[in-house]
Amino acid sequence: MSMFSWPIRVYWEDTDAGGIVFYANYLKFFERARTEWLRSKGVHQHSLKISTGGMFVVTDTALSYKLPARLDDELLVTAHITHAGRASMQLQQEAYKVVADEKILLCEGTIRIGWVNAGTLQPARIPSSILDVLK
Amino acid sequence: MSMFSWPIRVYWEDTDAGGIVFYANYLKFFERARTEWLRSKGVHQHSLKISTGGMFVVTDTALSYKLPARLDDELLVTAHITHAGRASMQLQQEAYKVVADEKILLCEGTIRIGWVNAGTLQPARIPSSILDVLK
Amino acid sequence: MSMFSWPIRVYWEDTDAGGIVFYANYLKFFERARTEWLRSKGVHQHSLKISTGGMFVVTDTALSYKLPARLDDELLVTAHITHAGRASMQLQQEAYKVVADEKILLCEGTIRIGWVNAGTLQPARIPSSILDVLK
Amino acid sequence: MSMFSWPIRVYWEDTDAGGIVFYANYLKFFERARTEWLRSKGVHQHSLKISTGGMFVVTDTALSYKLPARLDDELLVTAHITHAGRASMQLQQEAYKVVADEKILLCEGTIRIGWVNAGTLQPARIPSSILDVLK
Repeated sequence: MSMFSWPIRVYWEDTDAGGIVFYANYLKFFERARTEWLRSKGVHQHSLKISTGGMFVVTDTALSYKLPARLDDELLVTAHITHAGRASMQLQQEAYKVVADEKILLCEGTIRIGWVNAGTLQPARIPSSILDVLK
Repeated sequence: MSMFSWPIRVYWEDTDAGGIVFYANYLKFFERARTEWLRSKGVHQHSLKISTGGMFVVTDTALSYKLPARLDDELLVTAHITHAGRASMQLQQEAYKVVADEKILLCEGTIRIGWVNAGTLQPARIPSSILDVLK
Repeated sequence: MSMFSWPIRVYWEDTDAGGIVFYANYLKFFERARTEWLRSKGVHQHSLKISTGGMFVVTDTALSYKLPARLDDELLVTAHITHAGRASMQLQQEAYKVVADEKILLCEGTIRIGWVNAGTLQPARIPSSILDVLK
Repeated sequence: MSMFSWPIRVYWEDTDAGGIVFYANYLKFFERARTEWLRSKGVHQHSLKISTGGMFVVTDTALSYKLPARLDDELLVTAHITHAGRASMQLQQEAYKVVADEKILLCEGTIRIGWVNAGTLQPARIPSSILDVLK
């Protein structure tokens, strides 16, 4: 099975005074890749919120930062589901720097996601129509 | 009349690879100062949204960046209302760097703010209860 | 002459509790489009900083927010140079929402950019090799 | 031993279209609290970078999100060192929402930090002058 990946360019907004990508921004990069992975499966989160009244929320993140990225770097960010249950799902994600034909691992992590009622923010079961698509 | 001002410290998150505060972040600093200026007048935006169903939205921003700020710098950000009408208000704001007893102007700008129905996002009149407090 | 434009997708990170794109983030969107416009002309800012010891800095921004964007919206952001001098250049930029085949104007603005020595941050003349490419 | 804690107010910039604080921003809140904890011990990171040529970098983050925060909420963020070695240190951090006299846990996590040469970004030993202060 091929791994979903999404290209992300590093802009000024992503960097900090250390001259590198600010570590918190990898959570944004991972989110963008997850969103595009969902979109590739026909799951559009804004429509979903309107149609189901629910939304995904991130409940746990564990990231490990290996090597820094710099302004103008071209990254490739992956998303791979490792668990999908009624109450939560878990993904493994990586960010690579693309240099010529080589991919250098910069950051990897695990993201756990739950589902809540968008109004009350109370945890709820992930709609089975979504789980069917993601599995 | 004394000018409202709010202290803001520069953290890693605020800087970019140029070694200075990323210019877009002055809009955040100005927003924080406006929020605290409103709070100082008893206007709490989250409560306001719930009680009135409306919220402020920024419609125009014009900023001029004079000198850079760096990590760990201590800034002082002002907010001063220059116009308050039924449909919009306008503020003049400055960000200063505080060094010893001196204030060095880093950035100044004008922010125009309207009022919308939080559900429909349609423009509406600023509630007179708020205007009375702000004038 | 065709206008340079760059597609930008709205993610969770771009939105605020008003349910719309946080206005300060249009400065990021405009920056991304300018960076890609420069890249399309062979100007890579990170390499430039290393090779010339200088970098662009934003000195003035004036934005007008017309209509809101929401999560999952697909935007198109333009960049168009309106002035290029030895000490500064100015761009006109717009952000459109793309719906079917229609483009709806969300935000437009003017950005003025100078050039500084990356070490001292002192203003300097834009290298003529860059100006030649941009004009 | 008393725990270091730092007050943080939730602004528009911190929230997302779910109506709550965007989870990635807790890394920023934790960073602010660590920076102020360091400052309370006389460690100023910008001066440190200039004087030692080195800087802290975050190498691992593991966060668990318990309950959401909203616009205008007043948070209290703690920082507590749990390990300090020559190559890295580890902190336990929590973010609480303050309601009346009660503190409600919103988010907790572990942050591991290393030290690098600011020019080469190569890992290096944390200067003993800093370790002495932190232990």
